[in-house]
Amino acid sequence: MYDLISVDDHIIEPPDVWIDRLPRKYQEAGPHVVEADGHEFWEYEGIRGETMGLNAVAGKPIEDWNMEPARYSDMIPGCYDPTARARDLAADNIVGSLCFPTLPRFGGTLFLAFKDKVLADLCVKAYNDWMFDGWCAAAPDLFIPMVICQLWDPELAAAEIRRCAGRGARALAFVENTVPLGLPSFYTDHWDPLWRACEETQTVVNLHIGTSGQMVWPTPEESGFHIPIMLAQVNAATAMVNLLQSPVPRKFPEIQIALSEGGIGWIPSQLERCDRMWERHQGWAGDDMGPERPSEIFRRNFYGAFVDDEVGIELRHRIGVERIMWECDYPHVEAPWPNSQVVLDKLMTDVPRDEAELLTNGNARRLYRWPKR
Amino acid sequence: MYDLISVDDHIIEPPDVWIDRLPRKYQEAGPHVVEADGHEFWEYEGIRGETMGLNAVAGKPIEDWNMEPARYSDMIPGCYDPTARARDLAADNIVGSLCFPTLPRFGGTLFLAFKDKVLADLCVKAYNDWMFDGWCAAAPDLFIPMVICQLWDPELAAAEIRRCAGRGARALAFVENTVPLGLPSFYTDHWDPLWRACEETQTVVNLHIGTSGQMVWPTPEESGFHIPIMLAQVNAATAMVNLLQSPVPRKFPEIQIALSEGGIGWIPSQLERCDRMWERHQGWAGDDMGPERPSEIFRRNFYGAFVDDEVGIELRHRIGVERIMWECDYPHVEAPWPNSQVVLDKLMTDVPRDEAELLTNGNARRLYRWPKR
Repeated sequence: MYDLISVDDHIIEPPDVWIDRLPRKYQEAGPHVVEADGHEFWEYEGIRGETMGLNAVAGKPIEDWNMEPARYSDMIPGCYDPTARARDLAADNIVGSLCFPTLPRFGGTLFLAFKDKVLADLCVKAYNDWMFDGWCAAAPDLFIPMVICQLWDPELAAAEIRRCAGRGARALAFVENTVPLGLPSFYTDHWDPLWRACEETQTVVNLHIGTSGQMVWPTPEESGFHIPIMLAQVNAATAMVNLLQSPVPRKFPEIQIALSEGGIGWIPSQLERCDRMWERHQGWAGDDMGPERPSEIFRRNFYGAFVDDEVGIELRHRIGVERIMWECDYPHVEAPWPNSQVVLDKLMTDVPRDEAELLTNGNARRLYRWPKR
Repeated sequence: MYDLISVDDHIIEPPDVWIDRLPRKYQEAGPHVVEADGHEFWEYEGIRGETMGLNAVAGKPIEDWNMEPARYSDMIPGCYDPTARARDLAADNIVGSLCFPTLPRFGGTLFLAFKDKVLADLCVKAYNDWMFDGWCAAAPDLFIPMVICQLWDPELAAAEIRRCAGRGARALAFVENTVPLGLPSFYTDHWDPLWRACEETQTVVNLHIGTSGQMVWPTPEESGFHIPIMLAQVNAATAMVNLLQSPVPRKFPEIQIALSEGGIGWIPSQLERCDRMWERHQGWAGDDMGPERPSEIFRRNFYGAFVDDEVGIELRHRIGVERIMWECDYPHVEAPWPNSQVVLDKLMTDVPRDEAELLTNGNARRLYRWPKR
């Protein structure tokens, strides 16, 4: 049995996250749950949002999974109740869990779209305070605090990252690419205050697939959503190469970036290609590519994460056994819960115990400085 | 020493391809070479095109590679002269070579953009006739005839595919995705005449990276073109999953699709992910995904190709040793020429000889029915 640290789980926020924390005058405009047509929906700034059933399938038989909005009562309590979650995770001997937001989206981009940026700022801080007081407090040795930031203002974001680091935050849920969101790219110095705050506070930057708002969907009109799901690792590869070749890892050499839900099997081949192109295109692109081999930058600044990647585990030494972490993805479709140990026993059959310990918990312990003491 | 069959090389068309074959009244509007500012350019329909230096770097020192337009006299003759090419390839013991067009683009999309579709049709046929009479005729046992088609009209394309198959064509240079080109998707029945013609004539459908007109360029304004080059395998992965999950392989189970210049190291992890999602999303997407495992469809209908993929060769049994071919990419940047044998000896160090023969020539012989007799 492994002590497991999952570096990618998901919270379905309970209805009181913002209601309990926003000043009275913002409670109507801030996110709150309404009931209509037998469904429960989030509403904010007069907009009715959606809840995707696929976000909360844990504990349901596979044939009941669907894309319909759900009610809280359709989900198992572990989706939204941290005490129930802690019990569920304990059943798989998961001793550390890093949880992404759902309503704010995996990179916190919901509040970027808010018209009222004073409200948006309050919503970011309310979520972060709830992360500490509402979620992590229920099982402080289990839940690794991850926060979101004010994506529309890197100075504000940097201050919030520092405030949260002071409260014990270990991770930032950031976005895989800012350009599709209409924000300056990683090739500008716009984000330097944010990178600097993360580097100085050892806050790990987590890039979940899809947080650019773009999935890879080559035939969006006619093919099903299973295509972007199958192609999700292409999001991760694109995000990795884009950021790895940007000035960020050169300017902030201590920054640590975790690629969430992208899998790891593709990493060796992507790095091999990057290295080969780095060698062969020096003549015209050497200045852009920088003095370091892409694979060296990866091994200094990046982490990948797996749920059940046979290929990635076979290739672990090409990735770096120190650069791989496990994720459960509770309560989403990919989660092996409640059979994490069974799945991992099979996956680790040919992996020496010391390496398996690194992959299942050791690397995450080191990176997220967990447990706290 | 291996007998090599390269399934991805590139022709730089000589100036006479269209001039010699178009009716006199179309010669001014058809592609012809003009001289200006010390450069040579293609002109067609009043538009001045470009030639990219990177398309023809064979024989040049690495520090001279650049993105500038070139003159024919800047290139080694093997770029555009089939007799010189045959001599160059012989030096690497390359005994079969499949060549993509350059001016018509790797998927023949140039003529799709022509205003005058009568001219466009004549240009497609002129290129194909030149492929037989101008290119392959110079070394008929070496050059595997590959043709292009009228992308704006699948019936016309099907007729041309059948005509060319009658002349000995083995392959069609098609496009990785039609949607970005403003054409109906692979999820419609629009392309059925084309697929049927290819299936019935055993014409292999070749999808070169970039032929959708889209490269993966997450920060197009500020990052260099080396980023889409490093991410080219993402094009191939996207094209593969899109077509593999479309109705095409179900409707045309004999169709054979070769992914050109996409590398192979990513294939096992992409198929592993597709298979896992195919299992886990049956409940809501089973009908869309079809009854067959993605990895089974791949092993029946797809081929990958490598230049120098250590990772892919290590994982060859996860791809299928019958589903991998070698490519030289002469005269482009990635080409190992004139050191193909040296590169392959190193790459095949741990590969049994019978498998190495399949990878370097056996699979291509079978797929392209080559040599002809």
